[in-house]
Amino acid sequence: MCPFCSRGQDAWGELLGQNELAYLITLPEPVLPNSVMVIPKRHVVTPFELTEAEWLSLYDLMKLAKTHLEGIEQPDGFNIGFNVFEAGGQHVPHVHMHVFARYSDEPMAGKGIRYALKQAENARPLK
Amino acid sequence: MCPFCSRGQDAWGELLGQNELAYLITLPEPVLPNSVMVIPKRHVVTPFELTEAEWLSLYDLMKLAKTHLEGIEQPDGFNIGFNVFEAGGQHVPHVHMHVFARYSDEPMAGKGIRYALKQAENARPLK
Repeated sequence: MCPFCSRGQDAWGELLGQNELAYLITLPEPVLPNSVMVIPKRHVVTPFELTEAEWLSLYDLMKLAKTHLEGIEQPDGFNIGFNVFEAGGQHVPHVHMHVFARYSDEPMAGKGIRYALKQAENARPLK
Repeated sequence: MCPFCSRGQDAWGELLGQNELAYLITLPEPVLPNSVMVIPKRHVVTPFELTEAEWLSLYDLMKLAKTHLEGIEQPDGFNIGFNVFEAGGQHVPHVHMHVFARYSDEPMAGKGIRYALKQAENARPLK
């Protein structure tokens, strides 16, 4: 069973807010402590399967995430997005939107979500 | 002036589709050739400033992006997301949503949009 569904939102971080269709939950990482995720309440694997109402519920909580992160320490930037399927880095098969703060004193400030993945080191083998 | 607004969508890749409020455009990279972006027609810098109708227009074209990428070569995964402000890796100050295919034969298959940014190499200096 899906760990998000079976364990409930409380097992996955601090519940920061919710609306009818989604939760906003903390997801701290040692190097990205000011990180949260927005999780639809209904179990679907990918964002492509969301209803329009669910897609709007993510937007509502994305804006709440911004306010929350600004309250911890004013970010200089943000990244927002989805990993889809295992090859894309999705490790829990229940759609979740990452929202995390970026700061200009990070060594990788200025580098976005595609940066590492588009380097030569990630080139696929020639066919 | 904003390069997306002043040069028009044609200067930024092949136009794959559009709806009333946004464009879907190719954004090939040597190592991520199957990459596109969804760009709202109205000039705003961040996704936080979009109207609900614009947010839904991105969703509409995100699903068209999936269909387009599947037509090139069936992806094993996807990444979808936004870089916000320069610290976050946003280099054109007009909101654009990246959508790109991932493949299981990439050296970084299984690594998502946060992977590089959460490594110790990106730790901020201690205060």
